[in-house]
This record gives sequence, structure tokens and C-alpha cells, in this order.
Amino acid sequence: MKNTVAELGELRLLERIRSRLQTAPAGEVWAGDDTAVLRQEGGRLLLTTDLVMEGLDFDLSYASGADVGWKVLAANASDISSMCGVPSHAVVALAVPPECPVSFVDEFIDGLVAAAGLWQIALVGGDVSGAKEISATVSMVGRPVTAAVLRSGAQTGDAICVTGALGGAAAGLIALRRGMDANDPAVARLVERQLRPRARVREAALLASFTPNAMIDISDGLAVDLEHVLDASNAACSIDTDSIPIDPDISSVPEIDPFEAAVTGGEDFELLFTMDPERVDAAAAALSSVGTPLTKIGVVGTGERYLGPRSLEEWRERGWEHLRPR
Amino acid sequence: MKNTVAELGELRLLERIRSRLQTAPAGEVWAGDDTAVLRQEGGRLLLTTDLVMEGLDFDLSYASGADVGWKVLAANASDISSMCGVPSHAVVALAVPPECPVSFVDEFIDGLVAAAGLWQIALVGGDVSGAKEISATVSMVGRPVTAAVLRSGAQTGDAICVTGALGGAAAGLIALRRGMDANDPAVARLVERQLRPRARVREAALLASFTPNAMIDISDGLAVDLEHVLDASNAACSIDTDSIPIDPDISSVPEIDPFEAAVTGGEDFELLFTMDPERVDAAAAALSSVGTPLTKIGVVGTGERYLGPRSLEEWRERGWEHLRPR
Repeated sequence: MKNTVAELGELRLLERIRSRLQTAPAGEVWAGDDTAVLRQEGGRLLLTTDLVMEGLDFDLSYASGADVGWKVLAANASDISSMCGVPSHAVVALAVPPECPVSFVDEFIDGLVAAAGLWQIALVGGDVSGAKEISATVSMVGRPVTAAVLRSGAQTGDAICVTGALGGAAAGLIALRRGMDANDPAVARLVERQLRPRARVREAALLASFTPNAMIDISDGLAVDLEHVLDASNAACSIDTDSIPIDPDISSVPEIDPFEAAVTGGEDFELLFTMDPERVDAAAAALSSVGTPLTKIGVVGTGERYLGPRSLEEWRERGWEHLRPR
Repeated sequence: MKNTVAELGELRLLERIRSRLQTAPAGEVWAGDDTAVLRQEGGRLLLTTDLVMEGLDFDLSYASGADVGWKVLAANASDISSMCGVPSHAVVALAVPPECPVSFVDEFIDGLVAAAGLWQIALVGGDVSGAKEISATVSMVGRPVTAAVLRSGAQTGDAICVTGALGGAAAGLIALRRGMDANDPAVARLVERQLRPRARVREAALLASFTPNAMIDISDGLAVDLEHVLDASNAACSIDTDSIPIDPDISSVPEIDPFEAAVTGGEDFELLFTMDPERVDAAAAALSSVGTPLTKIGVVGTGERYLGPRSLEEWRERGWEHLRPR
């Protein structure tokens, strides 16, 4: 028996919490996917919550209040999108130390409102509290465009696809920590990926027409989030590593392997999904209307779970910490 | 211009945040009431969030993990109830230090689940994070029983009513801080009021039939919450101070004025509402079916806002800190 939260670790703590909750009734999804799916008069409701903590999820040495507000809103919007849903309303609980400048709170709210405006999400209320450190919890509701797309629906033979390009947010974090020159346009784009992520709200709405079978957003890295989908779907995969869309700007940050960044770097908030392979071309054409690439990176199978030289489990254990500057 | 959050104060910080948000469209309510009221297919949705922080809202010297979980769930359920709504689903974001015992998290979740079970609310997901101190944010959705009852609907001539008895939760906190003997049944009941508050979920559902015009839950104290209703309704009041239902157990705690506790003590989570005076007797009879008293304490008017010897503003400025042991 592990006695402290640190000894147990986050994933096992979450499993432990889930084991103490009741089981969802038929037609609902509770813990275990990107959002809860609830039955309501008038259709399903999606509900999610996401917490960011100073020193863990952001650092005021490089992030402004507006960056923090933007990102926590985007992370929630991405969770709703990854159910193939449309986010509609959010509330925020903000905790700040007494000595926190009012200007930080102003900027935080402005960042929240700006991101909410981009995706037409209404910020409808909240709570504030004192604290020793800054934290913010956003909770969001939305609706499935048609049906909620779970992690568990991947079918053998499905194409495995991703939106956009991967690894940029992690490389941007490293660039920020190294204090790299933000006048370099490639560095500036990477920093933007880290501080002002774009939830794939419009893309999810477009993809709904092509009935993806499983979907998740890439918040923990391609390898880890692909493992989540395959675990939930009881499936395996065959990945064409050459096809993985690597953010081209990563090459501007020295001493980073772009492939490793793309496979293990989190917070890109791209969509990872599986669908009938015959629909991939049409889905890609639809996403091109909003300027977003769609790339098929592999196929759902029944054998092993490798991504290039390592199994998904090995990638997860490796984590992304090796990307950090020494 | 106040430069820090502490200099500005919580109420003005909330006002400042609200001023930066967009305005709700017709038929919706955003910031400024107990919950947001949102238009959805199939009817209105209520959405709220509430944050509790170690050292401010609870203290582990007297509260267990289960107490903390129970109370944050109850505070949210009370917010939904105070819109004359029925809470249905909740998510939780929990932040704990690395050295926090896993048993605390177990107890916290068990307390959440127990309170949720009492009011048939489903706990459907959440998030965990590291932190320097323990905090928990619960967000909850629900539905109005018929129509959402706002703070702003009080009409001149309405009866002003409260459920239950007041002041017990504040007296319980003082009893806990003084380490009073919990074998005394009156002390034990006060401690229960503080640590395991009962949201008036069933009572709100019953009251809906009698169409209250305005409603709030008493979380900040009778005087302050009455002022919130009257501010929102642009109204005044005439209060019969002798009729205010004071928790009889308060007299077991020395050096507390029971009337002051009832008027200024928060966290009772009783409902404060206004309604057609001709419906009060029938509403009281309905609540007696679940064992909850309903007391008319005054009338909505147009003149001044006094509660006994002080104006509501004076009560607010006085606060409840004078109740604390010296």
C-alpha cells in the first residue's frame, strides 16, 4: 500500500478515485473519457473540468495571465471537441494569493474571454478564492454534434488519423525555458503553440459528418493518447512512422529530436481519431476548408502496439522529460 | 487603483471580473446569481462552480477528508436548489500536495459520493493535480423544477421566508475551534451543521409549486444574503426580528449571541425566498411533509432595509468575525 499521493502516482490515483464512483447507466459515460456524456431532455450533454496549477502547468516567468486564461479554456474546449462535440458554456474557479496583482486577474479573465470568443463559448460565471499559489479550474458543457465519439469505439481496419502537426507545443515550452529569441518566426510559432493552443473546435464539428469511431485529443502526447484509445477499444495498431506529421518549426530548437517531440510531446491539442479508411480522403478535403491538415498515420489492428522502435508502453514510460534541456 | 487582490477585496474583485464578461442574451442568466441559467434544447440548464481551499474554507485540524468532500458537494447542490432547481450531475477538480495521504483522497471521494447519493446527484468525472495546499472545485449542472427562480424577482408585498433554523453552522465552527465536547448532543448537532450541511434539495423541489418570486441560499449569513436579493430586486424590507428562527442549540456555546449568529452566521445553506403571502401556509404545510420548518420573517417593501437594530449594510460591514472566540 502506497501511503502518499506522490508514491501512488497520478494515473493510479485517478484509477483509485474511479473505483470509488458509481457506474454510469446505459447511454451515459462518466469517468474515463475526455468528458462525461449525460442524458438530458433534448439530447446528450457533455460535461468536463480541467485544473491548471502554477509551477506545474504554467510558470509566470514566461506565461502572462492572459496566456494562463487562454490555455485552461482551450484545454476544456479541446476535451469537448474530442468527443466530437461543440462546447457552449464555461464557468471558472480562480484561486490567487492575496498579494497577486489585480492586473493579473484582469489579464487572466481577458485571456479566457478571448479564447472563449474564438470558439463562441460563453463564460457564464465562477468563483474566486484566496490561496498560496495561483490555480484555475474551468468546467465546460457542450453538445455532441451528432453522437458523442468515445475512446472505446476503434474498429479493426479503421484508419488512425491526426489533425495538424505534432510536437510544437513541447518544443515551444523548451524554447521558453531556454529563453530563445522570440523574434525568430519559427520560435514565435512554437511559443504560440505552447501558450495559445488552438482547440480543434471547428474541425471536430466538420469531422462529425464522417462518423469517426473513436476520438481523443492529444494532451499527453501521441503515444500515450493512442494507447488510451487502444486500451479503451481493446485493440492494437500498425503505425507508419514516416507519415506522422512533425511540426517543421521544431528543427529551429537545437538538441531536440523532432520525431521524439512529435511522439511524446503533449499539449498540442490536436485530434487523434479512427474512422472507416474509405472516408479519410473526404474528411481531409472537408478539413482543408478550414486550413487544417488531416493525416492518416496507421491502421487499427489486433497484434502489437508499436510506434517505430518502441512499444506504446515503452514510449509512455520514457515520457517526454528527456526532451528538456540538460 | 488598488494594486493587489487583497487591497481590492473579494466583492469588488468579483464585480471587476463580471464587468469584463459579455452580457447574457435574453432568457439566460450568467454571473450574478447562484448559478448560471442557460437555454438548451429540452429546457433550461443550471450550471455552477464552487471552490474550497484549505486554511480558508476548512481546516484539517477539525475536518476529515470526508467532511471536505461532503461540504463542497453540498455547497454546489445548495446553489442549484436556490434557483428552485434539481441538481443532477457533478464533476470535481482536486488539488493535493505530494505528501498528502492517499487515505485523505479516499475519504474525500467517499464524502463527495455520500452527499451526492443523499440528493441523487451523479459524480461523473474530474481532474487531479499536485499543489502546495489542498483545494477542491466542484462544478454541477441541474434543471429548474419549473422555472429558474432568480434573486431579482422579489415583489413589493411578498412574504420573506426561510427554511429551517439559522446560525447553527457558525456556532458549530466556533465549537470546533474551541474543541468543545462533542458528546454534548447540542454541540454534536452544531458540528454536524458546520461539517455536514444539508442542502435543501427536496425543499426547493416542493417549493416550486408555490412559485416563489425570488430565492437565494444562506451561505454568507441572513443579512448579507437578504441584501443580495433586495439589491437584485431593487426593493427594501420590513423584518419581524422576533420571528427569525434561531437554532436552539446555539445557547449551548458560551459567549455567543444567538441572534447575532442567526443574522450574520453563514453556511447554514437554508433557503431564503419571497412569495405571495397567501401561499405561505400551504408552502409551510408542504415542507412539513419532509420535516422542514418554513418561517415567514418579514415583508418586501420599498422603504429602508433594517434587520432589528442595524441596517443590512451595517450588518454586512460588521461581518461575523465578532462571533469568533477571543
